[in-house]
Amino acid sequence: MATAPSVSYSMTVRLEVPANGTSVSELTTAVESSGGSVTGLDVTASGHEKLRIDVTMATTSTDHADEIVEKLRGIEGVVLGKVSDRTFLMHLGGKIEMAAKHPIRNRDDLSMIYTPGVARVCMAIAENPEDARRLTIKRNSVAVVTDGSAVLGLGNIGPKAALPVMEGKAALFKRFAGIDAWPICLDTQDSDAIVEIVKAIAPGFAGINLEDISAPRCFEIEARLREALDIPVFHDDQHGTAIVVLAALTNALRVVGKAIGDVRVVMSGAGAAGTAILKLLLAAGVKHAVVADIHGVVHAGRADLVDAGPETALRWIADNTNPEGITGTLKEAVRGADVFIGVSAPNVLDGDDVAAMADGAIVFALANPDPEVDPAVARQTAAVVATGRSDFPNQINNVLVFPGVFRGLLDAQSRTVNTEMMLAAAGALADVVTEDELNANYIIPSVFNPGATESVAAAVKRAAVALRQGE
Amino acid sequence: MATAPSVSYSMTVRLEVPANGTSVSELTTAVESSGGSVTGLDVTASGHEKLRIDVTMATTSTDHADEIVEKLRGIEGVVLGKVSDRTFLMHLGGKIEMAAKHPIRNRDDLSMIYTPGVARVCMAIAENPEDARRLTIKRNSVAVVTDGSAVLGLGNIGPKAALPVMEGKAALFKRFAGIDAWPICLDTQDSDAIVEIVKAIAPGFAGINLEDISAPRCFEIEARLREALDIPVFHDDQHGTAIVVLAALTNALRVVGKAIGDVRVVMSGAGAAGTAILKLLLAAGVKHAVVADIHGVVHAGRADLVDAGPETALRWIADNTNPEGITGTLKEAVRGADVFIGVSAPNVLDGDDVAAMADGAIVFALANPDPEVDPAVARQTAAVVATGRSDFPNQINNVLVFPGVFRGLLDAQSRTVNTEMMLAAAGALADVVTEDELNANYIIPSVFNPGATESVAAAVKRAAVALRQGE
Repeated sequence: MATAPSVSYSMTVRLEVPANGTSVSELTTAVESSGGSVTGLDVTASGHEKLRIDVTMATTSTDHADEIVEKLRGIEGVVLGKVSDRTFLMHLGGKIEMAAKHPIRNRDDLSMIYTPGVARVCMAIAENPEDARRLTIKRNSVAVVTDGSAVLGLGNIGPKAALPVMEGKAALFKRFAGIDAWPICLDTQDSDAIVEIVKAIAPGFAGINLEDISAPRCFEIEARLREALDIPVFHDDQHGTAIVVLAALTNALRVVGKAIGDVRVVMSGAGAAGTAILKLLLAAGVKHAVVADIHGVVHAGRADLVDAGPETALRWIADNTNPEGITGTLKEAVRGADVFIGVSAPNVLDGDDVAAMADGAIVFALANPDPEVDPAVARQTAAVVATGRSDFPNQINNVLVFPGVFRGLLDAQSRTVNTEMMLAAAGALADVVTEDELNANYIIPSVFNPGATESVAAAVKRAAVALRQGE
Repeated sequence: MATAPSVSYSMTVRLEVPANGTSVSELTTAVESSGGSVTGLDVTASGHEKLRIDVTMATTSTDHADEIVEKLRGIEGVVLGKVSDRTFLMHLGGKIEMAAKHPIRNRDDLSMIYTPGVARVCMAIAENPEDARRLTIKRNSVAVVTDGSAVLGLGNIGPKAALPVMEGKAALFKRFAGIDAWPICLDTQDSDAIVEIVKAIAPGFAGINLEDISAPRCFEIEARLREALDIPVFHDDQHGTAIVVLAALTNALRVVGKAIGDVRVVMSGAGAAGTAILKLLLAAGVKHAVVADIHGVVHAGRADLVDAGPETALRWIADNTNPEGITGTLKEAVRGADVFIGVSAPNVLDGDDVAAMADGAIVFALANPDPEVDPAVARQTAAVVATGRSDFPNQINNVLVFPGVFRGLLDAQSRTVNTEMMLAAAGALADVVTEDELNANYIIPSVFNPGATESVAAAVKRAAVALRQGE
């Protein structure tokens, strides 16, 4: 599939060109004929003989950007200056900061914010620890915790290289839900150590967002932390993805007029996201699910599963899916299926596979940046197609979910997060798309839809308050 | 010693009073005759018969505030409304927040700050981990880490109750040095666990500020972290205090015309601050130091020291002070001494003890809020007196130190902090007071002196850069 130029590969090039009638159009022609897209052009200095021009352009990759720069350099009379990468410029010095809510102008301010005045606030909390939610940042703070073991699609790149993602996540928490999140990047990948560390840092936070921790460690780490802590623990790669998939599936089924209990769902991928999606779909009423991983369809008799312990994730999948005992490959399993959900690898299916699905087929090809099947091809026969990409309709993006989920949890002062809350979040997100708006190319709201986070937050808060009142 | 009203015990009382000529003066008279201090008065609603008035006042304690409220309630015709504590109001919801540096307005912004653009930044850091200081918040971030075991003078109140202090510290880091600090309040007081946790969270920070961790655990925790980490670790209760004391002592000695190598220094207190002050004074050239704790003067033959291991802090003091082998009480030791430095408990000395010191005596009575000796009494015979309080001259406040020390360390990208840097910080802080300004009541700049942090930062940076270049 052809890739369109993206601002995430955007650069600004400073050039000196001869001051004649065609210099500017020579530059823009060079960019566009090479497949780049000019997004800005400023003449920053002008003289009788020379112009200095800053050209900003979107490209498809760093190699593509280099290629365009070389083409510009080759134009007669052009002198190439500084080449700046806009994405890197935005990251210089990091993307977030700490801000104080009150000015400290004089001794009076100091004596209330710090010693001696702060001592009375400390003593109030010592006497009634619940007051920490009233008198400190705890109420609105979330730790974004990673060990850097499974960052985006980049793999195990470690805690320092993961930091830009965690900063971005913190920025999104603030932008979409007004939450104060701080990145905690851990220099260990030992599950016991991670559990102990997160337990220890919990007093200052009202929630823990686990991020980019590899499977199957993430399952155990999350389960142990939920058991140990009195604040909610949410692994976004699992549950954020599961919630947005369920919301999109709910609306896709509305489009094709099928009931969730009737459809046969085939999934590709049994990692963190795949397992969480499966569990939430089962909780939402899916009765016929089959999961395939790199070794083919998961079933109880598969060679690598015969000896798998009862607590392993793959064993759980084998025990809770595939009631008909299907064996074989993904391509075989997908034949006649109503729904395909991929969270695995590029190009595991082709157009023939999609064409062999049931009428009114739903295809979610979520591998990033290259989906399990080319969405343009899938759309030729499937009724509804969604991807993780922003350049196709129906982007499945968990930015639609995690800010609202945490906003709801924090507003309810919830001590946990459970399946009911996740189902509520998915239902609320699906309902943001009205009956009038709903169609095969609009099953899920845009990330910038102002109602999405609010709806998810309200639904999660209701479910969390109900749980607390029922306790 | 009488306590003056303080804004840290400030409250605002809403009252309805009859609309006649004397209502306001009756209120202010009631406050002032009870020892309160009116700091603001607003008529917030006015009618023919009634006025609604908000009176803001400083008091000396919560009991005192209650007493004044009762007095106001007793005035004929007055109806008492809401009573608000200004210090608590400032703490509602906490004192700090997270802020994003760039707006997220549209998909283009999103694709640079988060996926897919962020992936290239992550890969750049994975290939060259040092780039984390360029492309992330690490460069300017400090973790303020406590276990809540020795918070202010309040003792072991735990991590949640310590949070308001850590937030205040973070606010001061920003206000005075532009540093982004985030509180990490640990739910463990096990030294091994604390060391492991701080090591693990280090990748996202350029420095660790340990805070309010009790002695002797703080010595071991700091030493092990310094050994393990490639970023500076600074226990402010120890070294911040030591640096500001050395700066003040340097100038006090200038006032009395004595040399640091000649004076006899007697200290009260062998905790975290006392031990660090002692070590820095010895490094700065003090040759005659004696330390007393609650059991009297520390000497090698003292009963509780005979069996103390060679690695204990008290043993170190015995081995490195008191060359004359003085025994007995603090009061005995202080006789004829040139300098007294107390970081211990209220009222361990009286006026006679200070009078028995050498001519040109220097008294630093730093216990908070009640000093080791009443400073008004000490000033009758001592040449220079300093305290930790803001309502006497010469306030020894480590807000003068820690922001500048970390600014210098971060600007130098220092991997450590050592005694040379601390001596440089103390010297620079002392030199902020010019020869013209220097006198017995002005040995240390004010917290709000704009040059203090900058001078300390520049000196520390120079020392840190010199160390890196010498490595």
